[in-house]
Amino acid sequence: MSASNGARQRQLHLNINILHSGFVPSAWRLPDSDPAAFTDVRHYIRVAQIAEAGKLDAVFLADNAAIVDQIHFRPIPALEPTVLLASIAAATTHIGLIGTASTSYNEPYNIARRFATLDHVSAGRAGWNVVTTADVPSARNFGRDAAPDHAQRYARAAEFTSVVKALWDSWEDDAFIGDKASGRFVDTAKVQPIAHHGEHFSVQGPLNLPRSAQGHPVVVQAGGSADGRELAARHAEAVFSASQSFEESLAYGRELKARAQALGRGPDAVQVLAGLTTIIGATETQARQRRDELIDLIPWDYSLARLAGTLGITPDRLKLDERLPHNLALPANGNGNHTFFNATLALAQRHGYTVRELIRELAGGGGHRVIVGTPEQIADDIEHWFRHGAADGFNLMPDALPDGLRDFVDGVVPILQRRGIFRTQYEGSTLREHLGLARPQGRQSTRIAA
Amino acid sequence: MSASNGARQRQLHLNINILHSGFVPSAWRLPDSDPAAFTDVRHYIRVAQIAEAGKLDAVFLADNAAIVDQIHFRPIPALEPTVLLASIAAATTHIGLIGTASTSYNEPYNIARRFATLDHVSAGRAGWNVVTTADVPSARNFGRDAAPDHAQRYARAAEFTSVVKALWDSWEDDAFIGDKASGRFVDTAKVQPIAHHGEHFSVQGPLNLPRSAQGHPVVVQAGGSADGRELAARHAEAVFSASQSFEESLAYGRELKARAQALGRGPDAVQVLAGLTTIIGATETQARQRRDELIDLIPWDYSLARLAGTLGITPDRLKLDERLPHNLALPANGNGNHTFFNATLALAQRHGYTVRELIRELAGGGGHRVIVGTPEQIADDIEHWFRHGAADGFNLMPDALPDGLRDFVDGVVPILQRRGIFRTQYEGSTLREHLGLARPQGRQSTRIAA
Repeated sequence: MSASNGARQRQLHLNINILHSGFVPSAWRLPDSDPAAFTDVRHYIRVAQIAEAGKLDAVFLADNAAIVDQIHFRPIPALEPTVLLASIAAATTHIGLIGTASTSYNEPYNIARRFATLDHVSAGRAGWNVVTTADVPSARNFGRDAAPDHAQRYARAAEFTSVVKALWDSWEDDAFIGDKASGRFVDTAKVQPIAHHGEHFSVQGPLNLPRSAQGHPVVVQAGGSADGRELAARHAEAVFSASQSFEESLAYGRELKARAQALGRGPDAVQVLAGLTTIIGATETQARQRRDELIDLIPWDYSLARLAGTLGITPDRLKLDERLPHNLALPANGNGNHTFFNATLALAQRHGYTVRELIRELAGGGGHRVIVGTPEQIADDIEHWFRHGAADGFNLMPDALPDGLRDFVDGVVPILQRRGIFRTQYEGSTLREHLGLARPQGRQSTRIAA
Repeated sequence: MSASNGARQRQLHLNINILHSGFVPSAWRLPDSDPAAFTDVRHYIRVAQIAEAGKLDAVFLADNAAIVDQIHFRPIPALEPTVLLASIAAATTHIGLIGTASTSYNEPYNIARRFATLDHVSAGRAGWNVVTTADVPSARNFGRDAAPDHAQRYARAAEFTSVVKALWDSWEDDAFIGDKASGRFVDTAKVQPIAHHGEHFSVQGPLNLPRSAQGHPVVVQAGGSADGRELAARHAEAVFSASQSFEESLAYGRELKARAQALGRGPDAVQVLAGLTTIIGATETQARQRRDELIDLIPWDYSLARLAGTLGITPDRLKLDERLPHNLALPANGNGNHTFFNATLALAQRHGYTVRELIRELAGGGGHRVIVGTPEQIADDIEHWFRHGAADGFNLMPDALPDGLRDFVDGVVPILQRRGIFRTQYEGSTLREHLGLARPQGRQSTRIAA
């Protein structure tokens, strides 16, 4: 474990998912929480600044283009990510800015521009989390009764992502001249159309925007299905995963990296960031008390409906003090969330949990792994997963914000730094540099230098 | 002209169009200009802060979703407006933030969300400039060979704008509760679907975002055609106009306001902001020298091509030292810019200009009115138009940025303030308050209070 050979030790990556008031559905009800935080830019900026003080790699914003949860009880992702992240960009200097946008309900030229713009206003800190959006309420906001089926969504997403990357690469790095004396502004020989004519899109290009400080935004994905893994292997530079056990996460990462290498990508081309919810206490007992307080503030009806949604069944099939029904399977159209379905089922089966116990262990549901403990216990767990290859880093989802992140940054980060696996200062200024990703080459000139 | 009766005098509105390096195509070549300003967020923030120091109503960003000008010689609008404005929002406190987005190449749910988000992150300072996008390069970035024809574009725009406004009004102002004790987060009876099923769109709604400090973003438009005027009369709260003469502007505003009133809107429901390019000098001679310097830095080939584009003809039909060809008419498909075509033609005919003179008087082209003079001369002109009803305010397009705006704020604004027609302090905090617009009512509850 020593770095005595002088080689730079492999470094952990930490991303914070700013889920409005926090991961636990009742987080907004805690005494220190601001219920209106979900629409308050100052809340998001505060969280991002705490994350930056902790030298985290990036902040992340999930997204839905509809109301897809029970707003009578809880906040939802509401503010559009690229716009919100641009405000955060102006109030921070180093931290990466990853936003979600759907390939099913956007056009690639618009997405390429918006994320390229975010990359410019942040001086190279942008990332795009590619999602395909399976839910019905979103579909109904875009002229459909239901989402396209799973395979159709991923076929469109694959072409969409290729087009976006081609647009980002449609300018060579040195296309901009800006020479006042000669009046030459751009070398148009270095800005070329992409002339894409595919099954889903025809896009002429080029983009109307030069490349950014990091070349182009980092592509992020969170695919658990076979199609999702294929998309991630081909395009993703960071992946948000959700595994309830070390073994599952290890296997997921190995398979993904093997797929990426089979497609000709390098061994470090994609970083796996495992989802991790933290509930921190000065003692384990205090942490458990905090968890139980949060659970007691969630109506059981809500938790049952949420778990039923994850499992693709109606809530009446769940009995609080019984185990999960047998023979659960994702809907035939494939429009469930494969990742959370698999992770939740595996957790319940491994421990033989009742529904009540399962909801408690999931801290209110969702499918992500939850650690309840002291900063030392959390650091131990993170170090174990990281050193033994089950993750390149973590997508942190603190129970409540900003408190849960402040506890992480004050308590867990210094331990990870002392153990030599997490930076004490930013060494670069772009998201790519934080994540140890290569700068994309971009469009290659085919002209021979004179 | 006195305000001695104690009534608050009608106030002028001033908006600044942040056209990257400035209005004149050669602005980037001036000694004090930064050629890279067009992609530098710090440039836009600097301009917005100067405008805010001058107590202007708003900054405005034009937009194209393609390269539609000759980038070998000049900058173009490149950064996506909503994202850029969100960064500006974080670095300013009062100034309004108006961005352009096309109804032809977006979905209404996405536009409603993005501008509502901008309205939240800016605490009620957002405006949406509705455009229909006629150019071919944009069409080819969205799967088409050409733009839909004029009537089709405006039919879609009218339905699009109605849907966006319905989404903005889908939450009642007091729908959000956030009561920790009871666990009630949102009163869902006050958040209702819009269930829109129209010719172009089916959108279920509601929006996934509450209303903002100003209710919803201000709707802005710039329509010169009959269809454009109809759209403006129905929906616009501010209009960017382009008239080369006092009489044309007076007639335009009167007709627009009469149309709006015929549709049941109040006399102050729409503010007309006339386009105005300023080239300022300490003396008129110095101002003219600056104009001539700027013109001399523009290749004539570029100016001819640009003027030909405005007139819908090929450049070979223009001879520098001859007058414009006879019998000019907009293209049959109506996809020219009616406003600039009419304004340019009127200017040329009124004065009998040669092409060379016309380009000089237009400060390089575009169709907007240009004043070359001292701060006093410019203030006189603005006051004359404003007091006699030819405009409610101006959409300023300084020759070069930030210099041209700084000269305006330091030189012209104090004169307008001394004359009592422009604010010396912001009296409100939202864009609606700056423009003197009523807060939109939003969705009315039909329930009887208990």
